[in-house]
Amino acid sequence: MLRLLLLLAVVAFSACQARYEPNWESLDKRPLPDWYDKGKFGIFIHWGVFSVPSFGSEWFWHSWRSGSKSYVDFMTKNYRQDWAYADFAEQFTAEFYDPNAWADIFKASGAKYVVLTSKHHEGFTNWPSKSAFNWNSMDVGPKRDLVGELAKAVRSRTDIHFGLYHSLFEWYNPLYLEDAKNNFTTRKFVERKTMPELYEIVNTYEPDLIWSDGDAGPDTYWNSTGFLAWLYNDSPVKDKVVVNDRWGNGIGCHHGGYYTCHDRYNPGHIVNHKWENCMTIDFSSWGYRRNSALKDYATIEQLLTTMAETISCGGNLLMNVGPTHDGRILPIFEERLRQMGEWLKVNGEAIYESTPWVHQNDTVTPKIWYTSNAKTVYVIVLEWPTDGTLTLGAPTTTTSTKVSLVGYEGAEFKWSAKQGSGMVIDFPAIPINKMPCKWAWVLKMENLTTMPWQSLLKASQFVKDREINFIN
Amino acid sequence: MLRLLLLLAVVAFSACQARYEPNWESLDKRPLPDWYDKGKFGIFIHWGVFSVPSFGSEWFWHSWRSGSKSYVDFMTKNYRQDWAYADFAEQFTAEFYDPNAWADIFKASGAKYVVLTSKHHEGFTNWPSKSAFNWNSMDVGPKRDLVGELAKAVRSRTDIHFGLYHSLFEWYNPLYLEDAKNNFTTRKFVERKTMPELYEIVNTYEPDLIWSDGDAGPDTYWNSTGFLAWLYNDSPVKDKVVVNDRWGNGIGCHHGGYYTCHDRYNPGHIVNHKWENCMTIDFSSWGYRRNSALKDYATIEQLLTTMAETISCGGNLLMNVGPTHDGRILPIFEERLRQMGEWLKVNGEAIYESTPWVHQNDTVTPKIWYTSNAKTVYVIVLEWPTDGTLTLGAPTTTTSTKVSLVGYEGAEFKWSAKQGSGMVIDFPAIPINKMPCKWAWVLKMENLTTMPWQSLLKASQFVKDREINFIN
Amino acid sequence: MLRLLLLLAVVAFSACQARYEPNWESLDKRPLPDWYDKGKFGIFIHWGVFSVPSFGSEWFWHSWRSGSKSYVDFMTKNYRQDWAYADFAEQFTAEFYDPNAWADIFKASGAKYVVLTSKHHEGFTNWPSKSAFNWNSMDVGPKRDLVGELAKAVRSRTDIHFGLYHSLFEWYNPLYLEDAKNNFTTRKFVERKTMPELYEIVNTYEPDLIWSDGDAGPDTYWNSTGFLAWLYNDSPVKDKVVVNDRWGNGIGCHHGGYYTCHDRYNPGHIVNHKWENCMTIDFSSWGYRRNSALKDYATIEQLLTTMAETISCGGNLLMNVGPTHDGRILPIFEERLRQMGEWLKVNGEAIYESTPWVHQNDTVTPKIWYTSNAKTVYVIVLEWPTDGTLTLGAPTTTTSTKVSLVGYEGAEFKWSAKQGSGMVIDFPAIPINKMPCKWAWVLKMENLTTMPWQSLLKASQFVKDREINFIN
Amino acid sequence: MLRLLLLLAVVAFSACQARYEPNWESLDKRPLPDWYDKGKFGIFIHWGVFSVPSFGSEWFWHSWRSGSKSYVDFMTKNYRQDWAYADFAEQFTAEFYDPNAWADIFKASGAKYVVLTSKHHEGFTNWPSKSAFNWNSMDVGPKRDLVGELAKAVRSRTDIHFGLYHSLFEWYNPLYLEDAKNNFTTRKFVERKTMPELYEIVNTYEPDLIWSDGDAGPDTYWNSTGFLAWLYNDSPVKDKVVVNDRWGNGIGCHHGGYYTCHDRYNPGHIVNHKWENCMTIDFSSWGYRRNSALKDYATIEQLLTTMAETISCGGNLLMNVGPTHDGRILPIFEERLRQMGEWLKVNGEAIYESTPWVHQNDTVTPKIWYTSNAKTVYVIVLEWPTDGTLTLGAPTTTTSTKVSLVGYEGAEFKWSAKQGSGMVIDFPAIPINKMPCKWAWVLKMENLTTMPWQSLLKASQFVKDREINFIN
Repeated sequence: MLRLLLLLAVVAFSACQARYEPNWESLDKRPLPDWYDKGKFGIFIHWGVFSVPSFGSEWFWHSWRSGSKSYVDFMTKNYRQDWAYADFAEQFTAEFYDPNAWADIFKASGAKYVVLTSKHHEGFTNWPSKSAFNWNSMDVGPKRDLVGELAKAVRSRTDIHFGLYHSLFEWYNPLYLEDAKNNFTTRKFVERKTMPELYEIVNTYEPDLIWSDGDAGPDTYWNSTGFLAWLYNDSPVKDKVVVNDRWGNGIGCHHGGYYTCHDRYNPGHIVNHKWENCMTIDFSSWGYRRNSALKDYATIEQLLTTMAETISCGGNLLMNVGPTHDGRILPIFEERLRQMGEWLKVNGEAIYESTPWVHQNDTVTPKIWYTSNAKTVYVIVLEWPTDGTLTLGAPTTTTSTKVSLVGYEGAEFKWSAKQGSGMVIDFPAIPINKMPCKWAWVLKMENLTTMPWQSLLKASQFVKDREINFIN
Repeated sequence: MLRLLLLLAVVAFSACQARYEPNWESLDKRPLPDWYDKGKFGIFIHWGVFSVPSFGSEWFWHSWRSGSKSYVDFMTKNYRQDWAYADFAEQFTAEFYDPNAWADIFKASGAKYVVLTSKHHEGFTNWPSKSAFNWNSMDVGPKRDLVGELAKAVRSRTDIHFGLYHSLFEWYNPLYLEDAKNNFTTRKFVERKTMPELYEIVNTYEPDLIWSDGDAGPDTYWNSTGFLAWLYNDSPVKDKVVVNDRWGNGIGCHHGGYYTCHDRYNPGHIVNHKWENCMTIDFSSWGYRRNSALKDYATIEQLLTTMAETISCGGNLLMNVGPTHDGRILPIFEERLRQMGEWLKVNGEAIYESTPWVHQNDTVTPKIWYTSNAKTVYVIVLEWPTDGTLTLGAPTTTTSTKVSLVGYEGAEFKWSAKQGSGMVIDFPAIPINKMPCKWAWVLKMENLTTMPWQSLLKASQFVKDREINFIN
Repeated sequence: MLRLLLLLAVVAFSACQARYEPNWESLDKRPLPDWYDKGKFGIFIHWGVFSVPSFGSEWFWHSWRSGSKSYVDFMTKNYRQDWAYADFAEQFTAEFYDPNAWADIFKASGAKYVVLTSKHHEGFTNWPSKSAFNWNSMDVGPKRDLVGELAKAVRSRTDIHFGLYHSLFEWYNPLYLEDAKNNFTTRKFVERKTMPELYEIVNTYEPDLIWSDGDAGPDTYWNSTGFLAWLYNDSPVKDKVVVNDRWGNGIGCHHGGYYTCHDRYNPGHIVNHKWENCMTIDFSSWGYRRNSALKDYATIEQLLTTMAETISCGGNLLMNVGPTHDGRILPIFEERLRQMGEWLKVNGEAIYESTPWVHQNDTVTPKIWYTSNAKTVYVIVLEWPTDGTLTLGAPTTTTSTKVSLVGYEGAEFKWSAKQGSGMVIDFPAIPINKMPCKWAWVLKMENLTTMPWQSLLKASQFVKDREINFIN
Repeated sequence: MLRLLLLLAVVAFSACQARYEPNWESLDKRPLPDWYDKGKFGIFIHWGVFSVPSFGSEWFWHSWRSGSKSYVDFMTKNYRQDWAYADFAEQFTAEFYDPNAWADIFKASGAKYVVLTSKHHEGFTNWPSKSAFNWNSMDVGPKRDLVGELAKAVRSRTDIHFGLYHSLFEWYNPLYLEDAKNNFTTRKFVERKTMPELYEIVNTYEPDLIWSDGDAGPDTYWNSTGFLAWLYNDSPVKDKVVVNDRWGNGIGCHHGGYYTCHDRYNPGHIVNHKWENCMTIDFSSWGYRRNSALKDYATIEQLLTTMAETISCGGNLLMNVGPTHDGRILPIFEERLRQMGEWLKVNGEAIYESTPWVHQNDTVTPKIWYTSNAKTVYVIVLEWPTDGTLTLGAPTTTTSTKVSLVGYEGAEFKWSAKQGSGMVIDFPAIPINKMPCKWAWVLKMENLTTMPWQSLLKASQFVKDREINFIN
């Protein structure tokens, strides 16, 4: 009897589950799978042949070929005159690449997903692509399936998803250049390279997330809607996959899955669509670059500030690390990631599965960011109040309002309501050895005035046709 | 009015110039452009990434991957464990590549055409192919257009043609492997790689000759007839281009342009179709291999023997040299080529523009090979007669028959007719300083019995539908 | 007349300035130049050809050659079979070596001296040695005078000294091996290599410190006393130079300048001779090794603990960093050094120019270490007291005793005397934003009971013949 | 009776065999061991780190550093800016080095001795020198004892000696440069490097010949006489060793063993001291250079001309080949050597153990060179006489004079005496297949007028104090 009911349910579901059509109107209606918004924090990894010169940034090839002085000087000083970019591939040795060690670090960081560059604009594929003969990690350099090995390692950990970055275009692929020269009226590159590879990585690695990039060209050129329709309707990952928005000229920030808009997108206010702030620990580069010093790496305080800003405004944070050509995540990156994890272990309730609150930052005191869930408002305090008193303008208290410091074993914090709205909170002088965490702190506020928004905000609702009028 | 005339002209032309259809019956009717048969002697050049390990042969990759012991040992001894074949490309430096110096050597050898590997089975293109991104000589290694540079250099010499070798398949191209696995019912590799590249080299370099190879797969898979129809009808080289016969399983030795049948094809008798003996100076390899000693290189006497056998039987001789990874043709090759040229300078009239005679070798004395032209029969004598007397069974003399040694300033040679047919020729004791050449000698015989074959044999007639009944 | 005067002057000089004789009794009488003991904290740098494989440790060559499995495996996996250690030298490229950037980091760390490996046991000299033809940094690899460049950069900063590490022996130098085989009865290696090089670095770079190592062999073999007598009497650095104790079998911890005894020497009690704790930020290696993860790097808390233990017991701390083969000090090292500097900027008065106190650590509470100067006792508190109360057993208070937290702007700390000796100090609950520093704290205690030791302890007194009876 | 006298002579010599004193007067009295003069033909091998760039010549380092344009351009084009000469050593891989294959070629060439560069001016030792730590073939690059392996291989063949070339100075060894700067008043380089190495190679490899070179500096600086006295009196090779003359400024061509005077020394007349013509198959380089074409290699005719000139004038011929960095003797060299052997197999009697005749070349006809032995005069004919008649001015015939062509199975050659002296020889028209050899021919003349010189000329007499008044 139960079986019959289940069968009926499935039939009914199928009947009312229309297929997505290959146009944005239809595709944009697809709800984002829940895991993504709940995860909030992911690790981005930029790894490729650019990790061999490891100078400047992952745009090394482009900068060099464009004649950028520091890159040209670097090559003149360190390589023979006729050195070609592809000559670097042999030195992409990855001999220290231990995907399980990487996965341990990512897991320890508190991240809920990992996004690896399967292929960057250089066109080198980190998996044995059928369409990149001898320009992939199995045929030259590492002689390993970098993507497949990391997929396996990440998935052997619990509660962490695996996604793939993929560049649609390739700077110097002659087929792309030819299509571009033809104003994208020809599509050789898409048909022989981009599409075969996208289908290949989906079918082979079943990524939970596809982070599309390098979408220079019209979406019609890229066949983006065609691919997404297949991805949503028929692919092996149709139920779980999340994608971003970089699917062609003018598409970013307007269509697709979540929005990235531009690198390091961090609007500072709520956005009426799920979005992601992809940013780097090394301020200036996604790929590992050797010409970086300590000052170029964000401190944990800076990273937590970015996280607070991002999560409060409804974004996810995708924090980038750049491994070395020989397969290592350097200790400075590992330290930042483990610090993130240390902080999230205490304060995760304010981040994971949180939703934005009515207010994102405070109207009175700077460096204060809010998140919330059904019953609670969280106040992320980036600087301990100078004189032990924190004035907040946003909350409207009730008589039963309670304020506590997340992770702190001591008493609730005393507070007093301000006239109109707002409140003043007393921060006791907690000795350093009693502090629940370092770098930033979270206040948990219960029993504020109830608000209607609380039942509405869910990740799956971040789709255009059900927009909520947020206060921007 | 002018327009009308032009239109009429075009119509008239079209009317009398039938186009070749994409089937063998039609394509096989095309006469070979004259230059090829008249040229007789060409230089083959095998150069590619295999020139970097330069061990064993140009099949290095295949032998290594197949587990051939000496290759595996070589790699174990000399390279790191994870070394990939494509890693060699960076070391394909070609820094000494001087195409004009090469062209000088080829010209001095007496060769009338040069055939360079544009791409061997490894798939590496010696030109900046649009379909071999980062697996070509401009993107990795030499950073030069090896094909284009040699084309220019060879063409700046007179009376020498430029051709290109091209491998249809690629051992390890995953698209080819996929098609092959599908019993060639899919054609991804052909559509994305083989055909685009063939059109590209024809349009870019306008080769006089296309030496197809690596035709593992049905001709219908390769679209060979389609390509050739275009090549013969519409390509920029339609009037001059010569092709060989390796265009698909079962095609070699049966269809296409001239026949190669198999490597080092040297049947020893006349063949009713124009053919070519492609062979190597290094007995065991087409690509340069470092593990070769003097004994592995044919002597000039051996090379001239092969030339005599080949030309006498109606073939062309395509003699192979293997340049080094850094772009040099080693002195041992240069010496052989210049020795060929030295000999041909004296004896070229017996080779170039010659046609096979009724007999190819002699019925009485071994190491004697015949060629002919309208009025003359040439006897190539590979060993100076032991006792000064050469007996020939093939010629039928007349009273006005004259015998002379080509290039010799002394008197005609005396001879006497043998009963029935045949003759005995006296070789005078010529002191070494009076000899016209070394290694092999040519007798010129005039006024033998006239024969009908002499007016028939022309290169353009070496097409199947006009076969002559040669005595095999 | 002038001559007479000069003679008199010399006699006078000789009379008051006795020359050191080449024996330990005489040499050991030389007082240590003041700057060393006052400096307290130095940076050690291990850099050499071992930084190229950068695996395991700077003993790479020895471990590999001794058959240590992980090293052999590493070589088998990553290099060709016949790879020799010296083959690594070509890859010691140092292209990112910026001695001024290094000097900035060292200066920022609060270190008062820097000691660079001029030559480690591999024998490779980081300067253009006259006795190491083609096995030095000018002739192979960097093509630069690594020592000279750093000397210049360090010296252009104020208040920081420059020293050189030098290995007497070389693992595989055949002359050393021959001498060793002869039980050190021959001295080819010393005469041709060790001595010429020691004189060379002293005369060329005038180091403030010579950190001798690798003294396997009798001091008579090494001619250590002869060299030191010259160094102390006649060398250009005779007035300022400091040396350590590794000058031959049995000499360490008994003769020479300050004692190092063994690596990471940290006795935990006072020693009746000036000593140094040389230790590493990476727990397991002096040279940079790529196979290290974050857990292998000491935290700043661990480093400060070591510093407290060392300085309290009269030692200097020499903290090691390992640069990469391309000349970089990685951010994880830079971070630790800058953290040291941040801490010392606040608490330097308890470290620099301090002397050990009567007690080194506390008799009641662990993780407490004392230093002192003429009027003050400093208490280094490695853990903030759990319950806000710190009980100390060592100090004897007076009624005018004052206790304050170094760098803290708030009030003095309250305390009460315990019966007999000892005291209890109240630690107020200082909010985190009012804390003067992180990781460890220093109490400054004034007006404790006066003690006779205070006038005696000076660095220059750390010589054997004036030993003080410290309580060990 | 003669035997008895000889015996007595030997006894007497042994009895009074005083030791050589370390001065030229004494040393020059030592007779050359017989094997050397009897051998006549040796192979010289220049192999070293210069074989890696393999450009220009074995003086690559010097030319580059001196700013020679083509060398600087080569480096600019092909190597990184900071490339050091010693960086090449890693690429001196010698993976194809097969000393037995080399020995086979040398043996087949007819050479009676082989001289390998143990160390050229670059200072790199091809054996594991105790005084060239990490700048020798065991410590870097080949990881093999190149000298030892060849010594063993050569000695396992019969009738062929093994010698070593050794450069006294080293262009850029700082100890040498220092001594030179001191006008050779200091001798650090000699004491630490040159002498230890010379003793080492003698004691280790027991060479039959020491080919000293690079003697820039006074012989007193080099301690040449001291070394030679030891070599002649006490070394393990004292009875068999042969040395040349390059032992200090002004010594060459005046003292020592045989004379080399200058490279390619070929005076064209007899010299009153045993001498050697060291020359190269590649006209322009001793080391293998890649920028060489066929025209740069001597033809076999040119080599035989040089041999004829050299042997006729009392010299030995030392013909140089340059192996590649990976250990191969290229086929062009092998071909020349085997051609030499082919010729010597027929004509060796005119070369080995021959002595110069009264005349070296002919007074009437050019390109004629004479050698002789006790009963026979040999006439080396480099060009077959144009008209079959050879006129010689030097021989004085008798009625029983016989003239034959060495190796020819046909009749003796007819001749007629010319008035006064001289003769005219008829060269019959020998067909090419009856010729005993190619390239050059030897006439054997018996029963010419007896001459006193014949009993005097022995190799052991080529010492200064027993000079014969040759007709120069």
